[in-house]
Amino acid sequence: MALNVTIWNEHRHEKKNETVAAIYPKGIHAAIAEGLDVDAEVTFATLDDEEHGLTDAVLEKTDVLIWWGHVAHNEVKDEIVAKVHQRVLKGMGLIVLHSGHFSKIFKKLMGTSCDLKWREADDKERVWVVNPAHPIAAGLGEYFELPKEEMYGEHFDIPAPDELVFVSWFEGGEVFRSGCCYTRGNGKVFYFRPGHETYPTYYDANVRKVISNAVKWAAPVDRAYPTYGNAKPLEPISEKA
Amino acid sequence: MALNVTIWNEHRHEKKNETVAAIYPKGIHAAIAEGLDVDAEVTFATLDDEEHGLTDAVLEKTDVLIWWGHVAHNEVKDEIVAKVHQRVLKGMGLIVLHSGHFSKIFKKLMGTSCDLKWREADDKERVWVVNPAHPIAAGLGEYFELPKEEMYGEHFDIPAPDELVFVSWFEGGEVFRSGCCYTRGNGKVFYFRPGHETYPTYYDANVRKVISNAVKWAAPVDRAYPTYGNAKPLEPISEKA
Amino acid sequence: MALNVTIWNEHRHEKKNETVAAIYPKGIHAAIAEGLDVDAEVTFATLDDEEHGLTDAVLEKTDVLIWWGHVAHNEVKDEIVAKVHQRVLKGMGLIVLHSGHFSKIFKKLMGTSCDLKWREADDKERVWVVNPAHPIAAGLGEYFELPKEEMYGEHFDIPAPDELVFVSWFEGGEVFRSGCCYTRGNGKVFYFRPGHETYPTYYDANVRKVISNAVKWAAPVDRAYPTYGNAKPLEPISEKA
Amino acid sequence: MALNVTIWNEHRHEKKNETVAAIYPKGIHAAIAEGLDVDAEVTFATLDDEEHGLTDAVLEKTDVLIWWGHVAHNEVKDEIVAKVHQRVLKGMGLIVLHSGHFSKIFKKLMGTSCDLKWREADDKERVWVVNPAHPIAAGLGEYFELPKEEMYGEHFDIPAPDELVFVSWFEGGEVFRSGCCYTRGNGKVFYFRPGHETYPTYYDANVRKVISNAVKWAAPVDRAYPTYGNAKPLEPISEKA
Repeated sequence: MALNVTIWNEHRHEKKNETVAAIYPKGIHAAIAEGLDVDAEVTFATLDDEEHGLTDAVLEKTDVLIWWGHVAHNEVKDEIVAKVHQRVLKGMGLIVLHSGHFSKIFKKLMGTSCDLKWREADDKERVWVVNPAHPIAAGLGEYFELPKEEMYGEHFDIPAPDELVFVSWFEGGEVFRSGCCYTRGNGKVFYFRPGHETYPTYYDANVRKVISNAVKWAAPVDRAYPTYGNAKPLEPISEKA
Repeated sequence: MALNVTIWNEHRHEKKNETVAAIYPKGIHAAIAEGLDVDAEVTFATLDDEEHGLTDAVLEKTDVLIWWGHVAHNEVKDEIVAKVHQRVLKGMGLIVLHSGHFSKIFKKLMGTSCDLKWREADDKERVWVVNPAHPIAAGLGEYFELPKEEMYGEHFDIPAPDELVFVSWFEGGEVFRSGCCYTRGNGKVFYFRPGHETYPTYYDANVRKVISNAVKWAAPVDRAYPTYGNAKPLEPISEKA
Repeated sequence: MALNVTIWNEHRHEKKNETVAAIYPKGIHAAIAEGLDVDAEVTFATLDDEEHGLTDAVLEKTDVLIWWGHVAHNEVKDEIVAKVHQRVLKGMGLIVLHSGHFSKIFKKLMGTSCDLKWREADDKERVWVVNPAHPIAAGLGEYFELPKEEMYGEHFDIPAPDELVFVSWFEGGEVFRSGCCYTRGNGKVFYFRPGHETYPTYYDANVRKVISNAVKWAAPVDRAYPTYGNAKPLEPISEKA
Repeated sequence: MALNVTIWNEHRHEKKNETVAAIYPKGIHAAIAEGLDVDAEVTFATLDDEEHGLTDAVLEKTDVLIWWGHVAHNEVKDEIVAKVHQRVLKGMGLIVLHSGHFSKIFKKLMGTSCDLKWREADDKERVWVVNPAHPIAAGLGEYFELPKEEMYGEHFDIPAPDELVFVSWFEGGEVFRSGCCYTRGNGKVFYFRPGHETYPTYYDANVRKVISNAVKWAAPVDRAYPTYGNAKPLEPISEKA
């Protein structure tokens, strides 16, 4: 059965920066969608859409939400973030890309600053698989390279991932936990590092494979949200003095 | 060297409820302090103190903060919560007790609803050690019992603990992850389940041992907060086409 | 595409004990196979088969191996255990049931004693889901009950699971980590507690659902085994003094 | 109270290789001992000692065992490995250094091949702290460098560490999980990558700090070994039909 995948893109760089527009003429979201090798119905949503494109109807039907944002994290309305947060806890998968590490939704789900070191200097990046059994690593070699990328370096202020899938090597001397899996409530969250807007990263075959794998991994499990609150005993409770 | 331990107590039940006042005449915070078997300077802070007792000066010197709250989580000011959050990321230990699972600070650090099942019915609780190598389990037997406690039951909506130390059995048929360790930034967080205000839980020798162990475990590690942001390369970066 | 599932059963109790024979007339392996709701080709293998039924040809084609053993762990030949171990590292999934906690293969993969508390006294068991987002919990309620089972209690001497899915409550006062996920090399391992031979546990709809889910979860990821050993540099290494 | 630390060294390279002898004239074990900044009684044990220096009496009193081996892993007797294994499960800390990744004891505790990529080519190594809250990272900067080391690269075939403290960057393009914490039974295990015999790594101030921190972290927790086996019920068990 087809998954409902919503790709959220800030979509500002593409409109204002010629370099970015040349690489992603239809927007980063379109390039991500083009690369999805998943049986999926794709919906686009961007910052400047009504309710950022994330209406109740869209969120309700979304199985997996992909998130790319960078310069306008603060323009994302808190009430929309709260709704996305609730949907993740109820089971929607969330894939946070690159500079989305500083998005409101990722910081809210992580509980940390999500800060890191960065550098825009055409570093070569080599992404190593450290968990070869993980479904997000399916079909990849032992590593893959991106000839030029923005560097992100440790310390990356995140909770220790439930599962660490990738670690990146950077030409300038840094390392980074590049593929991090989390569970939050009924939902799964995957952070994937690559994807600076001035590079054609989302056309890379390996990057596309990772995102496709991640969508499948993050798809909701078929089960009800737990019941919380006051609970009747399931066994007799003895009288106490 | 003595640790600076601040015990934060909502301190409302003790003033309004005769049962609670009879059990904790000087407040829950005093009973916790009395039970600390740690070389520590203890500071008390309560909701109704100026800035909830958590001034910049108090927070700055605090090595480990213990948190008990229940009926007035919403009265804790967001700006104080933000300061406590920053202090945890900078290295302050945080021990969250019982109904503190629903405190603003715990929810902010966890990123989930922190919801659970509960019942006030004099359940017997048996707290089992599932990680005997953990320093928070030092000096305990294989389990300890609390003759009457409020029940908390799964599902407990928290991120999977970095380390799970205790699992509770309840008379009414439930289980609960009762001792959960987390790292957030430079800081350590421990959630410990027992401690409903209508029971003398904080006089229990095992509960006191756990809290004392947790204070030592959560004490800050001596190191600087990481540097984040734009970073110069540590190695030469080749010219790219 | 159909998975190749091999069900290994010690198959001794069924031959010697009338109670067990009455419950599992065709063997525990047959009852497990009957309950599999997976697109799978099933192969049976038992202790008394040539090479315990685990020839190179069988192991090589097996995607997921299910293991039930109890009284004759020591009769399993070390060379067969070594082969199963290698196959797990190369990617074969392994599901270890109940008393298989003491099998040579599980102990070898865990590195611990895998010891536990036990009792044959018709305890009621209630298996709670503690990770509702996990695919092994798909389709289950918040808990399920087994009216009579052997008790297994903490401390269970295993490495902390990579993912903990179930925790059991027992009538006699114990708790147990009942559903534990591990990764070993390219392979995935799931330990699932229920299944004492004198109870009809493998006819239970929830138990069957868990085993079916686990088979799908443990299926190998499509990728090559990593290359180990002497490695040429991928980047130039500077001359050192 | 002083810890009893036993440093086990294969002690073969120092006797046969002039380069190594020049760097470690008294043996690698002596250099490690010299660098320990811990209140400790140190015992040396080497492969060619009676029972490899690991008699019952020595093992029984040892709080933390440090292990360095390389070319003669196979000469370590299985019965000694079994005793060390039992002592770890009973609470003794174990620190495995560098090529000890292939020691019998480490492989037995991990359950995997513990294989990796390697290269002897004077790579520069930069060890990054990825868990700044961890006591093993106390007193370190954000990273430290070793000007020349043997390279170890991913995939490193170990179970996912319970806590990952360090990730190394290598000049030749690889990354490696260099500081890995595990719990096994009542015991703690730390694997630390650096320390090839042809480099003066164990004189490095940061390396010494890490080993000292690890000894303190791995020291046994004061508690009894759990009781396993047949267990009487702690609560009444109802009659079943």
